[in-house]
Amino acid sequence: MREESELIGAPPGTLTYIGKRITAQPVVTILEYNEFDFSETRHTDIEASMVNVRNGMIRWINVEGVHDTALVEKIGKMYDIHPLTLEDIVNTNQRPKFEEYDNYLVNIMRMIYEDEECKSKNEMYVSEQLTILLMNKKTVISFQEANGGDVFDIIRTRIRQGKGRIRKSSADYLAYCLIDAVVDSYFEVLEHFGDALERMEDELVGNPKNETIRRLHEMKREISYLRKSVWPMRDMVNNIERSESDLISDSTFVYLRDAQDHIIRVIDTVEFYRDLIGGMIDLYMSSMSNRMNEVMKTMTIITTIFVPLTFIVGVYGMNFEFMPELHTQFGYYIVWLVMIVIVVILFVFFRIKKWL
Amino acid sequence: MREESELIGAPPGTLTYIGKRITAQPVVTILEYNEFDFSETRHTDIEASMVNVRNGMIRWINVEGVHDTALVEKIGKMYDIHPLTLEDIVNTNQRPKFEEYDNYLVNIMRMIYEDEECKSKNEMYVSEQLTILLMNKKTVISFQEANGGDVFDIIRTRIRQGKGRIRKSSADYLAYCLIDAVVDSYFEVLEHFGDALERMEDELVGNPKNETIRRLHEMKREISYLRKSVWPMRDMVNNIERSESDLISDSTFVYLRDAQDHIIRVIDTVEFYRDLIGGMIDLYMSSMSNRMNEVMKTMTIITTIFVPLTFIVGVYGMNFEFMPELHTQFGYYIVWLVMIVIVVILFVFFRIKKWL
Amino acid sequence: MREESELIGAPPGTLTYIGKRITAQPVVTILEYNEFDFSETRHTDIEASMVNVRNGMIRWINVEGVHDTALVEKIGKMYDIHPLTLEDIVNTNQRPKFEEYDNYLVNIMRMIYEDEECKSKNEMYVSEQLTILLMNKKTVISFQEANGGDVFDIIRTRIRQGKGRIRKSSADYLAYCLIDAVVDSYFEVLEHFGDALERMEDELVGNPKNETIRRLHEMKREISYLRKSVWPMRDMVNNIERSESDLISDSTFVYLRDAQDHIIRVIDTVEFYRDLIGGMIDLYMSSMSNRMNEVMKTMTIITTIFVPLTFIVGVYGMNFEFMPELHTQFGYYIVWLVMIVIVVILFVFFRIKKWL
Amino acid sequence: MREESELIGAPPGTLTYIGKRITAQPVVTILEYNEFDFSETRHTDIEASMVNVRNGMIRWINVEGVHDTALVEKIGKMYDIHPLTLEDIVNTNQRPKFEEYDNYLVNIMRMIYEDEECKSKNEMYVSEQLTILLMNKKTVISFQEANGGDVFDIIRTRIRQGKGRIRKSSADYLAYCLIDAVVDSYFEVLEHFGDALERMEDELVGNPKNETIRRLHEMKREISYLRKSVWPMRDMVNNIERSESDLISDSTFVYLRDAQDHIIRVIDTVEFYRDLIGGMIDLYMSSMSNRMNEVMKTMTIITTIFVPLTFIVGVYGMNFEFMPELHTQFGYYIVWLVMIVIVVILFVFFRIKKWL
Amino acid sequence: MREESELIGAPPGTLTYIGKRITAQPVVTILEYNEFDFSETRHTDIEASMVNVRNGMIRWINVEGVHDTALVEKIGKMYDIHPLTLEDIVNTNQRPKFEEYDNYLVNIMRMIYEDEECKSKNEMYVSEQLTILLMNKKTVISFQEANGGDVFDIIRTRIRQGKGRIRKSSADYLAYCLIDAVVDSYFEVLEHFGDALERMEDELVGNPKNETIRRLHEMKREISYLRKSVWPMRDMVNNIERSESDLISDSTFVYLRDAQDHIIRVIDTVEFYRDLIGGMIDLYMSSMSNRMNEVMKTMTIITTIFVPLTFIVGVYGMNFEFMPELHTQFGYYIVWLVMIVIVVILFVFFRIKKWL
Repeated sequence: MREESELIGAPPGTLTYIGKRITAQPVVTILEYNEFDFSETRHTDIEASMVNVRNGMIRWINVEGVHDTALVEKIGKMYDIHPLTLEDIVNTNQRPKFEEYDNYLVNIMRMIYEDEECKSKNEMYVSEQLTILLMNKKTVISFQEANGGDVFDIIRTRIRQGKGRIRKSSADYLAYCLIDAVVDSYFEVLEHFGDALERMEDELVGNPKNETIRRLHEMKREISYLRKSVWPMRDMVNNIERSESDLISDSTFVYLRDAQDHIIRVIDTVEFYRDLIGGMIDLYMSSMSNRMNEVMKTMTIITTIFVPLTFIVGVYGMNFEFMPELHTQFGYYIVWLVMIVIVVILFVFFRIKKWL
Repeated sequence: MREESELIGAPPGTLTYIGKRITAQPVVTILEYNEFDFSETRHTDIEASMVNVRNGMIRWINVEGVHDTALVEKIGKMYDIHPLTLEDIVNTNQRPKFEEYDNYLVNIMRMIYEDEECKSKNEMYVSEQLTILLMNKKTVISFQEANGGDVFDIIRTRIRQGKGRIRKSSADYLAYCLIDAVVDSYFEVLEHFGDALERMEDELVGNPKNETIRRLHEMKREISYLRKSVWPMRDMVNNIERSESDLISDSTFVYLRDAQDHIIRVIDTVEFYRDLIGGMIDLYMSSMSNRMNEVMKTMTIITTIFVPLTFIVGVYGMNFEFMPELHTQFGYYIVWLVMIVIVVILFVFFRIKKWL
Repeated sequence: MREESELIGAPPGTLTYIGKRITAQPVVTILEYNEFDFSETRHTDIEASMVNVRNGMIRWINVEGVHDTALVEKIGKMYDIHPLTLEDIVNTNQRPKFEEYDNYLVNIMRMIYEDEECKSKNEMYVSEQLTILLMNKKTVISFQEANGGDVFDIIRTRIRQGKGRIRKSSADYLAYCLIDAVVDSYFEVLEHFGDALERMEDELVGNPKNETIRRLHEMKREISYLRKSVWPMRDMVNNIERSESDLISDSTFVYLRDAQDHIIRVIDTVEFYRDLIGGMIDLYMSSMSNRMNEVMKTMTIITTIFVPLTFIVGVYGMNFEFMPELHTQFGYYIVWLVMIVIVVILFVFFRIKKWL
Repeated sequence: MREESELIGAPPGTLTYIGKRITAQPVVTILEYNEFDFSETRHTDIEASMVNVRNGMIRWINVEGVHDTALVEKIGKMYDIHPLTLEDIVNTNQRPKFEEYDNYLVNIMRMIYEDEECKSKNEMYVSEQLTILLMNKKTVISFQEANGGDVFDIIRTRIRQGKGRIRKSSADYLAYCLIDAVVDSYFEVLEHFGDALERMEDELVGNPKNETIRRLHEMKREISYLRKSVWPMRDMVNNIERSESDLISDSTFVYLRDAQDHIIRVIDTVEFYRDLIGGMIDLYMSSMSNRMNEVMKTMTIITTIFVPLTFIVGVYGMNFEFMPELHTQFGYYIVWLVMIVIVVILFVFFRIKKWL
Repeated sequence: MREESELIGAPPGTLTYIGKRITAQPVVTILEYNEFDFSETRHTDIEASMVNVRNGMIRWINVEGVHDTALVEKIGKMYDIHPLTLEDIVNTNQRPKFEEYDNYLVNIMRMIYEDEECKSKNEMYVSEQLTILLMNKKTVISFQEANGGDVFDIIRTRIRQGKGRIRKSSADYLAYCLIDAVVDSYFEVLEHFGDALERMEDELVGNPKNETIRRLHEMKREISYLRKSVWPMRDMVNNIERSESDLISDSTFVYLRDAQDHIIRVIDTVEFYRDLIGGMIDLYMSSMSNRMNEVMKTMTIITTIFVPLTFIVGVYGMNFEFMPELHTQFGYYIVWLVMIVIVVILFVFFRIKKWL
């Protein structure tokens, strides 16, 4: 795992891969389609000749694995991408953003999803950076941080089967579909998060353990982290909305408005869960405090009853030669009587104090 | 109950019902009226022929139950509604919003009310999504998530009896009336919430139980949830206000400004209750802390008085052969005297410390 | 006391009185004046003929008690007031607001003041809704929720005696004076609040009782409530400032800017008191925690000293036949010595721990 | 000390002095200067004749003590000052603000500084209201709430000695210098505040006493109070910046921007100290909680060890006739052995629990 | 160390060095370069003649150590810098800001980095003020508070070796590079901070000591301090973005947008760490509370079991003459039986209460 500090001092636009997951070999998938036709190819490198030049075809070039900076640079040259954009692609801890360049639009987000690997590690989700470039009315290039899973399988199916509007629309609609799929993946993770919260809540009410509070704090931290990658998406969508680029058609704008709506719902939900966890921690603390009170009350009652009694029996355990009470016939019974009276008085006292 | 994650990957505009309450059969009510005339019909399906084509009639088509996506789609086609709007109608966890399309305006809110069912379940209210479409100067279509109760009975009565402005006004005024009825329903629920809070407060002051704090946290959570569906309504009304659509007449704008005012009052009240509950939880915690202090003080006093005394009587319970005090004539009485002196001193000490 | 929920479903503009204080009979006071002349009449009803029609007279029609909706409606018709404004007048839990209609301006605020009644009930103030309508350059109509006290006595005196600018200015200046008097009444109540806070603080430092924290939380709640009716006034003044109505002259605008300034100072003070109460509650909690520590320390010291000693004397209270120590001549004195040594060691230990 | 509530109902523009410090006699200092010449006079009253009428002289009229409302009124008439401004001058609890009138600009701030008096009272600073009026290119009038100290001595020195730009610049630069001196005075007080905080922190870490938390809360309150008079200055400078008055020249604007910068630094520092104090209070509370834990642990260990032992020796202190153990030869030693074993076991238990 | 308060009253534009680190001798480094040529000289003073006058050369004048105000003033005169800018340069506790003057742009930031000295003092970083002046298309002047380390070594290397765009670009790109290097230095420090936080967290979960909470609060304070110098950078970049100065070319603006992005990421990270530390402190407090509960429970169990037993054995330790139980044959065994029954009952009770 390479860290950001290694980049310090490098000239801007230097391509150095920064990220967690270096995978064996990048994969480049090229999908070309129009309303009537469709082709799909899979490579480990890219050449201009691979891209079908027939008119009227929409191209989606999907690159999985950006640690191969040479490949990213090659694509950058083919499509005249600004060095800073290339840097952002390989430096995979960008905050979500939307930027307009003269010849293309770029949208960076974090894509989160669940796969086998993260389940085996007991993590909630895998998170990787996704860069979507809308080059022109015909071409979309997407860069995924790592190869392996993504959230685009159903988009591929829709293209292959020609379902929905996608085959009939231009590249901006494809770019929207990718964004929409990423946003939907947040809902899925949040739903699981919500389920986990509900289980925690039952546990909290039924049988809170020391472990519970630790888990709660961990979840609070996870939601803080999620929040950090979700909040900037609000700015991102605002920038998309204000964009006056020709590359986005009016009909696609309606869909983008819908995606914006979804993103705001994601943010709302994250905030709501944060609030909920805060409330649960407070509830835990106050129920701990309640228990403490109960424990202390029990002990105080026991102490308050028996300590005076023990003193009394201690008195008559003294070995003084001259203790007249010891020699009376009913002394022993009188002591018992006195002690019972004391207990009764203390009981009444506790009742008044509402401790019993 | 179907969850949102099932939608992931579906092409935008796909109609899949997402919601809690699937009811047997949707009901379509068509109300047509003008200043002089009025008709009301009830169906389970809709055909173009059902809609009266006489000029000058205002039409309110009210659909209860949106899980029948075929019906929704049919209406969508009849009135040329955008697929995204249809998706929002059936996907019933939208955040409140107002959107303008070329040929219509759409307003989505959550309608909350109390019915027999929720009372039996001991819940505060039923919440369902309501979508209001203002199609043109003559037609309003409303989609309720479920059939069963709603908050529009008095609007129906007003139309039937021709009370108020409603029969004389155009469709935008009807749309306003629906929005207003929904906002009013929030006041009703909040009023009950306020009453419950007042009862909690009496309980808190009089006789707080462990149960009390649990209930308080539950109410805090409920208000958080309510807040989540109330806050976005602020944006909603701002968007309505900024709308420049011809469909809303100037005279109706005055009424919408009034509705906006009510919504802000709802939000204020929700925030106020949130604050109040926070204060009550704090009060509970500090009164718990007070009780704890009192309990501890009682125990400390008992311990501090009797432990030294028990030690003293223990001393004279020892069985040493040579303990001169045991054989003096007044030893026993002197020990009592010493112990009484100690108790008096401790009493004075506690008085100084203000523990008694 | 009628509640808001009774209004639900009524057509907008329906006049139903909502409020706490229904008083016997509304009172209408008509004050007419110009620089040279002045008349004052008092009625229980209003007719057009009552209003002096001489040119050049400023009219202030003050209605106390709005539960007589017929009266309000009559005035509404006389002056062509919008039904929604009339509804706001009688529905007395509006949030403070300023609205412009075509033919008049309306300003709604809560007026707070102290009277004999609230003192007898041990409340801080009476709060009632005040609606000020600036009809034209000559007429101001004010509606008070209840008859009884108000904060306008000194304005009346100024008009009667012709002091200040008021007799020489037009109706907008009169409207300003009313607003200014209401804002000033907040200062008075806040001053009393501040005094109460100061007394609480002395109590908190000197001799905090369980009662203290309850009072503090009550004050926090009262200030929350005050805040709820003070905050919207910020928007209100902003709207006044942005108003481009002819009804307000430039010279009056300067005064309104001053009133705005006062309102912001009221808000600042409310926020400051809120902060202060928060700090006082924290201080109480930490001093409680301090006391608890002290109590526990005392008990721990007593326990730690006497429990081991009691054990030792218990040992020599055993009745074993073969206990050699019991038969030595100085056994008893040696035990005392050992116990004294233990006490000394514990004292040193406590000193090191800084518990003594 | 007169309070604001006495003002209630007075016509706007009524001059009633509201403030804490009524001093014997107001002092009027008139300083006139240009690049070449300079005169300084000191009066207790003002007449038009006192103001030098030679062209090209800058005039600074400094009034100390505004409780003499007649004097303020006289100046008001001489310079045609709006009654509301005069009211603000004598009503000395204004929030900082900047206002433009047709013929002058007015800037109200609180000036804070340390003098002998406040040191003797153990207060951090004296705070008094300062009103600066920029009448025209030649005249600045400043009103100080009280006579006695101020923060302008060095400005006077600079004028007298002709140091810096001041003698060569017009009145707006003088006004800026006064504002700058006031802002600088905040830095001085904040520096002392910071020093006090540092001392508190050392105390908190080294040897926290009950007194410490009280002092901390007091400082928190003082900083809240300071904040209340510092925050509005942000609006004030924004208003100055947006001002399009001819009275402020472009070259002075650069300096005002600098003053704005300083004010924002003051606000930042106040916020930072607030945060710091909050953190220190939390630290105190958690170290209290630590101590409590330690105390309780000590007591629990002692109790847990000796209570069972005391029970055992109690058993053999019973006086039953038939207790076989009492008559065995090694019974006494076996009891000791058992007790030692128990102690060892408990020690191991405490070690495992990490209490020792 | 001189403090800011010494400045009070000095005329604006007075150069008085305010700062922590006065170093022996300022160093002036002049770097001149164009695409083909490059020269580097090192001085302790500056003369106009030192600056190469050949056309087409970019000049970077770097001054380390601003306590020599005479030197700063000389440079100020050479380049016609406004006195207020010079004052900001030597008064080294400015908040980060960007300002435009007629003939130059000035950018003030805090540069943070780690050197040997701070490691030896166990501090996280050295912080010093950096002022960057973009004089024209050809000249950049930078003032560092102290000589010694900085974060520009790699920029120097890039210039010397002609790597990247820097040698081919004009002075605005150089200025950007300096800003970028400073921002990158924040990432480095934050990374170390993050590592320290992670270690703290492991400690917190594994084995929290009293020391832990102290360290946490210290870190919270450090992050508060860092935040104070990071937040104003947001305004700074906004101002840069809004700048319409000719000095910054369009191609450099793209890079500045990137730097802005980095700054916002720094701010996000600082906020995230703040949140994290808050959560860790809460976790510590709740785990302390847990421990306390456990300790108290142990003690309560011991007390509740043994105190009644001790009372019972105390009863039969009394020396009354007439105590029938003492003389029964199985009395002793019956007492044991009773005590065992009591213990069993208490165990069941504790089980029900879930204390065991």
